[in-house]
Amino acid sequence: MPIYQAPIRDYQFILGELLNIYQQDHLTGFDEFDPELIDTVLQGVADFTTDIMLPLNGSGDIEGCRLQDGKVVTPKGFIEAYQQYVDNGWATLTCDPEFGGQGLPEVVGVFATEMKTSTNMAFAMYPGLTHGAYAAIHAHGSDELKAKYLEKLVSGEWTGTMNLTESHAGTDLALLRTKAVPASEGSFAITGEKIFISSGDHDLTDNIVHLVLARLPDAPEGVKGISLFVVPKVLINDDGSLGELNSLYAASLEHKMGIHGNSTCVMNFDGAIGELVGEPHQGLRAMFTMMNQARLGVGVQGLGVSEIAYQNALAYAKDRIQGRALSGVKQAAQAADSILVHGDVRRMLLSQKAFNEGTRALMGQQALWLDEAERHSSPEQAKAASKLAALFTPIVKGFVTDQGFKACVDAQQVFGGHGYIHEWGMEQFVRDSRIAMIYEGTNGVQALDLVGRKILSDKAQTLQLWSEQVKLLIQRNMGNDAMKPYIAGLMDAAGDLEKATGYIAENAAKNPDIIGAASMAYMQILGITALGWMWTRIAEKALHQLAEGAEEKAFYQDKLKTAEFYMGYWAVQTRSLRKQIQAASAEIVAFEDSAF
Amino acid sequence: MPIYQAPIRDYQFILGELLNIYQQDHLTGFDEFDPELIDTVLQGVADFTTDIMLPLNGSGDIEGCRLQDGKVVTPKGFIEAYQQYVDNGWATLTCDPEFGGQGLPEVVGVFATEMKTSTNMAFAMYPGLTHGAYAAIHAHGSDELKAKYLEKLVSGEWTGTMNLTESHAGTDLALLRTKAVPASEGSFAITGEKIFISSGDHDLTDNIVHLVLARLPDAPEGVKGISLFVVPKVLINDDGSLGELNSLYAASLEHKMGIHGNSTCVMNFDGAIGELVGEPHQGLRAMFTMMNQARLGVGVQGLGVSEIAYQNALAYAKDRIQGRALSGVKQAAQAADSILVHGDVRRMLLSQKAFNEGTRALMGQQALWLDEAERHSSPEQAKAASKLAALFTPIVKGFVTDQGFKACVDAQQVFGGHGYIHEWGMEQFVRDSRIAMIYEGTNGVQALDLVGRKILSDKAQTLQLWSEQVKLLIQRNMGNDAMKPYIAGLMDAAGDLEKATGYIAENAAKNPDIIGAASMAYMQILGITALGWMWTRIAEKALHQLAEGAEEKAFYQDKLKTAEFYMGYWAVQTRSLRKQIQAASAEIVAFEDSAF
Repeated sequence: MPIYQAPIRDYQFILGELLNIYQQDHLTGFDEFDPELIDTVLQGVADFTTDIMLPLNGSGDIEGCRLQDGKVVTPKGFIEAYQQYVDNGWATLTCDPEFGGQGLPEVVGVFATEMKTSTNMAFAMYPGLTHGAYAAIHAHGSDELKAKYLEKLVSGEWTGTMNLTESHAGTDLALLRTKAVPASEGSFAITGEKIFISSGDHDLTDNIVHLVLARLPDAPEGVKGISLFVVPKVLINDDGSLGELNSLYAASLEHKMGIHGNSTCVMNFDGAIGELVGEPHQGLRAMFTMMNQARLGVGVQGLGVSEIAYQNALAYAKDRIQGRALSGVKQAAQAADSILVHGDVRRMLLSQKAFNEGTRALMGQQALWLDEAERHSSPEQAKAASKLAALFTPIVKGFVTDQGFKACVDAQQVFGGHGYIHEWGMEQFVRDSRIAMIYEGTNGVQALDLVGRKILSDKAQTLQLWSEQVKLLIQRNMGNDAMKPYIAGLMDAAGDLEKATGYIAENAAKNPDIIGAASMAYMQILGITALGWMWTRIAEKALHQLAEGAEEKAFYQDKLKTAEFYMGYWAVQTRSLRKQIQAASAEIVAFEDSAF
Repeated sequence: MPIYQAPIRDYQFILGELLNIYQQDHLTGFDEFDPELIDTVLQGVADFTTDIMLPLNGSGDIEGCRLQDGKVVTPKGFIEAYQQYVDNGWATLTCDPEFGGQGLPEVVGVFATEMKTSTNMAFAMYPGLTHGAYAAIHAHGSDELKAKYLEKLVSGEWTGTMNLTESHAGTDLALLRTKAVPASEGSFAITGEKIFISSGDHDLTDNIVHLVLARLPDAPEGVKGISLFVVPKVLINDDGSLGELNSLYAASLEHKMGIHGNSTCVMNFDGAIGELVGEPHQGLRAMFTMMNQARLGVGVQGLGVSEIAYQNALAYAKDRIQGRALSGVKQAAQAADSILVHGDVRRMLLSQKAFNEGTRALMGQQALWLDEAERHSSPEQAKAASKLAALFTPIVKGFVTDQGFKACVDAQQVFGGHGYIHEWGMEQFVRDSRIAMIYEGTNGVQALDLVGRKILSDKAQTLQLWSEQVKLLIQRNMGNDAMKPYIAGLMDAAGDLEKATGYIAENAAKNPDIIGAASMAYMQILGITALGWMWTRIAEKALHQLAEGAEEKAFYQDKLKTAEFYMGYWAVQTRSLRKQIQAASAEIVAFEDSAF
């Protein structure tokens, strides 16, 4: 069975040292958090995920979910584990205290999510989707709806789902056909079929709260005619008790490449009773206000699976003996050296490590921006943070899940043939992490959102805002020789980013299709540069701590070495990506359909 | 079910126009081949693979193999399809006519293999492994062994396997423990356990011929003490009829990520009777003489699966409507445009197309070198071809399977959520193609073989031999404006290759571990440059055919556009890879084990 060690020290470094969250008293509620409290929470999640969730990951994958007499049965052990999850209060961490939540910030919640995903991505999706439903009702529901649903969703007594996709309407929700017609007492009858519904039905809870996109009878065509409804699996009586079954059911389970422990359903709504969330025809807008958070959640899946894959690949590389180092025998007492001596094994592991740690810091920064957007005492700062979070949403989702998947493939590769069989668990990580590149908007859609909306429509103002932070970081370290390798790498990447932005801005006006053709390479450039920014900040902080006489010298020195590797291996990738944009975008657009 | 159209026109172009195989009369036997004969063969394979093998690919994946009463049962339909394969004579194509083969060259066989892999990789591995066993006995067996086994292997009446790996001995065969002790009448009793044995047991044929690596009692330690034995599943009587069952059996089936239709077994040899192939203690050398061919076979798997994945992604992209082009509505009669209008979808498809077609040409070139090595009337030319084939073996295996897998992941991505579920077959292509990066020497081992043996130990002489061909191509097209974009791209890539070679040569002497650290990026640079060389040759040929007034103008013009895209998108990747080698190799080596 795969091992897992929650990266608690890294969380402490990011929260307490890099992002200084204990000195952010201008963020409402942050004065209540201290390292002791946060450490206790994170250690609690670490213990739960390692002891309870991890042992169910492999078995849940092999057993999968099944549809029995019209009801979904989850893998063995999931019911008990979920009950314990609820009893321990892990569902409530970042929720509103008014409804039973603990009010912890996103910057803490994001790391709880990482640990859950590392240990059991399929299981983590049940509470993960619940959080989406909670957030939708919390942000857009009436007081009545909030009273009816939120406490149960916060506690985890009920779970939630998001019903968007139909077989012909995925990225393009304008095409969706599910109908909502007025029924008794202000309610609506929902009819239609939804596919790919994560956690759509299961046996973990007595009720499931479906958030469903549908069209009202008077709806305009396209995305401006979509409304959001809350549709419970079991109807709720006026006294809050459970009533009759609603007219909806899981028609089938999707047969997927991975995340077998999660019940991905085709859902049929057959005149199911639901209530409107927010205004009529404003459903898509309501959904999209939660998008930054939801996409951060998917991005963290890219990190979480990559982290556990790395830990296992490293353990295997230390344990497995095979061949000898090119520079001569290293472990003479053994019949062969451990494969960690081999340069290409080291390369793969170091690439994963640099990606994981840099990404973890970026995830913290992104979550902190989301917290600032919600809690900052200055409305201007809150707005700036909100814009930065929006800019980096495609990065934390698209760039991170792309690279996280590749990291899992590399981790599997470290195992050789043993990586290809179930027993070691590595091939499951590859299969599971693959979905994160697809759902919550494919990574191609993320790239388009980045270049089209977040850069061009914004006239690059938010990019500029961030670039100024990068420049400040560079300027204040220019005179410091110890910072040279990091600054040089960051400047090179930032230079390519600037040139790529210029090329797109110049050519998109002439030919808008260039935007799509260039978008993926652009997203990778910004992602690599963003991690370069985080690694430079990490290096700056590590040098500071060492200068201050920190006791854990090795911890900070390792950060410096990893940062240096990042610049030599990862940051240099921007050069070719920028050349791709300049040399191939026009070719991609001009290539005739008949020539494919 | 996935569609498939065999790329017959591309085969004709490569064989008849690019490589000119019908004018190679200095290769023994080539005067017997004409376009009509070869077209008939390729079309026959195309029909068989499309009509018989393809329909069993998805069902074989879902059903998989199972072990029942100690015997392996293959998926439904495999027995009948295999019988038809044998009856049609498809097993015999490139085998020696002395033993019933058709004596066709590798340059034709390689494309038959591509079609088989495209349509059903798991099924194709049964005859694929047989060919390995045939080649081992053909090259190293005594006349007696040849008489006993070759005809049955050539016809396909029996299949073959290769038993190398043990649980503790994969890449490092020096560690293997299987024993062979002398038994009656010059035979040996083989005892040990082998893992990951493709086609290890099955119900397709009456007998299975295992080639097994084992140690004789007086064997020196390490790789110099390994001998090769032929060990049949069923013993063969003196009159050639089948006798008793040998003492060997499939102990279990491996639970794999993919290629479920192939029976990958743990094989137990319990004093099984076998005969020595070649000289004692020379088993590894015997195995490795077939390596170039075997690794080409695995490389072709990378291409074959990538090709069918591309074809299906393209068909889906044309059919699936979702959203509108950024430059405005393209298909007003539909509710949305086909997703082929979106730049990022086009980018993924074009990248796959450029990789597949360039790789197919390179595979042809590699196979032709293997043919020249065997058949050239000039021993010097034969030797040069043999060295070139050895140099490019890690490229066609390592580079191609790496990039082929990525191409499958991209093809899956084109399908969005539909790519993640079984129904469309795309996720199977990803799972199946993943193994090609691992077996027959992991791609890390390929990269090490390239830099260590094929470049440094060779003092880059063979690389120089090839570089001269590249320079000749550049020189003879320098004055031609129409060739400029291709020549420029090839020169840039070749320049990076030269610098990367220089860096490694200079630093490897000081620190041999640099070789491993730099090897993967180096293999990618050489692979990208090699495809750039093929695309430049393709462009040169296409321009020539157009100038000659060829009728299929569109075919050649499409080649030119694809070549141009290759230079703008693929060839530019060498820049960052070269920078990685220069900036990160030393970091990788120096990184302390404790810091991971």
